[in-house]
Amino acid sequence: MALPRQVELVEVGPREGFQFEGIGAPDKLATADKIRLIDMLAATGAKTLQIVSFVSPKQVPQMADAEAICAGIAPHEGVRYQAIYLNDKGLERALAQTGLDIDGKITLTTSETFALRNQKRTLTQDEAMARRIAELYVAHGIRVNYGMLMAAFGCNDEGPIPLPRVLELVAKLHEISESTGGALETLNLADTMGRADPELIRQVVGAVRARWPGLRIALHLHDTRGLAIANAYAGLLEGVDLFDSAVGGLGGCPFAGHKGAAGNVCTEELVFLCDRLGIATGVDLDAMVACARFAERMVGHALPSKLVTAAR
Amino acid sequence: MALPRQVELVEVGPREGFQFEGIGAPDKLATADKIRLIDMLAATGAKTLQIVSFVSPKQVPQMADAEAICAGIAPHEGVRYQAIYLNDKGLERALAQTGLDIDGKITLTTSETFALRNQKRTLTQDEAMARRIAELYVAHGIRVNYGMLMAAFGCNDEGPIPLPRVLELVAKLHEISESTGGALETLNLADTMGRADPELIRQVVGAVRARWPGLRIALHLHDTRGLAIANAYAGLLEGVDLFDSAVGGLGGCPFAGHKGAAGNVCTEELVFLCDRLGIATGVDLDAMVACARFAERMVGHALPSKLVTAAR
Repeated sequence: MALPRQVELVEVGPREGFQFEGIGAPDKLATADKIRLIDMLAATGAKTLQIVSFVSPKQVPQMADAEAICAGIAPHEGVRYQAIYLNDKGLERALAQTGLDIDGKITLTTSETFALRNQKRTLTQDEAMARRIAELYVAHGIRVNYGMLMAAFGCNDEGPIPLPRVLELVAKLHEISESTGGALETLNLADTMGRADPELIRQVVGAVRARWPGLRIALHLHDTRGLAIANAYAGLLEGVDLFDSAVGGLGGCPFAGHKGAAGNVCTEELVFLCDRLGIATGVDLDAMVACARFAERMVGHALPSKLVTAAR
Repeated sequence: MALPRQVELVEVGPREGFQFEGIGAPDKLATADKIRLIDMLAATGAKTLQIVSFVSPKQVPQMADAEAICAGIAPHEGVRYQAIYLNDKGLERALAQTGLDIDGKITLTTSETFALRNQKRTLTQDEAMARRIAELYVAHGIRVNYGMLMAAFGCNDEGPIPLPRVLELVAKLHEISESTGGALETLNLADTMGRADPELIRQVVGAVRARWPGLRIALHLHDTRGLAIANAYAGLLEGVDLFDSAVGGLGGCPFAGHKGAAGNVCTEELVFLCDRLGIATGVDLDAMVACARFAERMVGHALPSKLVTAAR
């Protein structure tokens, strides 16, 4: 396949970073700084920002200010502000905000071990929750058109995930969407624990595309084992044109099962890669590097981004 | 091209790391620790170790113990110990050691700005030095069969290097080798300042291979802008089966023109990538991760390797 001519990036650094950096220190990052980072990111040319998660303040106290963040940002024209949630309660909180873009996203997970840890549900309960969330969307006039599959490329506990299992779950995402009168338009394959490699990316993306040629594929790539940017390149080689990425390489999954979980693929490095390959992202690299520098000052330590160091 | 079935790694972490970590603090790393790291690396399955550079102790005081390191290591059967040098004086010092493998390597550079900073020579002087070194090899019965091209993928000061210029310098490396009765067997394309991208790697490697089909191509990839592992994957896609890499991602070029120069592509991440792709390296991943942990304790800070963190 030819490389895509343009790529859309979903900036997940705020949500990933606020969640991860606050582990054990929920007040480490000031709400005002979080808002400032989001406002800076909105001015980089990034068109979609994932800014908070609506999750249990008991489990994730560092996200207790999610509503305050939503209320505090200065909406930037042309920018979509999004959130994540793991259950109907979280979705209700998201729906209560003004200015959030709720995109009809349902999520399944390949690994029961991970689902129990991250969502506190068995896979059966998890599927039931996806169906409940889908109904809630419909009740609010939102089409169920976006599926996400967590741990699509392997699990720290369960190891490799067989391709037929991945395809079965993608089929289920389609079925849930269609059961509500919707149709899946986008599928996000998440390498939640950073276990993918470039050839696995090509194999899984290729197999999904062969079966559902009209489906737009997105990748969510953690850099846990250092391969995220190579995996992103592999995605580009397969024509993938939608990526989650995190400024500075912020983030990490608090429930991935080891302490060193790295964040998502670094936005400025992905922008740099796309710039070099002649792929338009709409993001201004210098402005994104400035955001990464601010994020480093916020969290009080160097972030994984190499580019932010090189650019100094 | 098909992926190679096996890949040879040259572990450059000691030379890169000792050189870079000692900038401004030549006594920071104890000679005994340097020797211990080399001895640990020799037991990982890595077959070639680049352990020191013979350079001016005035310019690079942290390498003043190069001879002591060579004398102190415990030679491991089947492991080749190598060194680098930038001029005839350095080569004479290397030749005076017992147990070093001197491989008939000559080096040219694409960028005069970089040559002036790193080698303290104009390009004309640099070429003359390559010829002098070639003659010195011949005088010691060493065939001139290995060429290296520094800044082959761009320069921080001079920007992109046109492909015809790269090919012209590779032709010159051939000519120097042949003028001594040798023949170039291996060409190392060095991304000295971490400016390559995966498509540029494929373009340059492809063009060199098209013109010199019998030449074995090696890559030396710095991770300055975060793309090293993607560039390595691009090299594998072009069939490259010889890579320099640095345990933990150690190193950086002291003369690259900015402080944040990252080290070489991280050995354990490259081994992990190869393991995943079914490419044999002969290196034991756990043993290499243990070396990276020891290197982190030596230098007193976290190294760029993500895998070493994930593996904890």
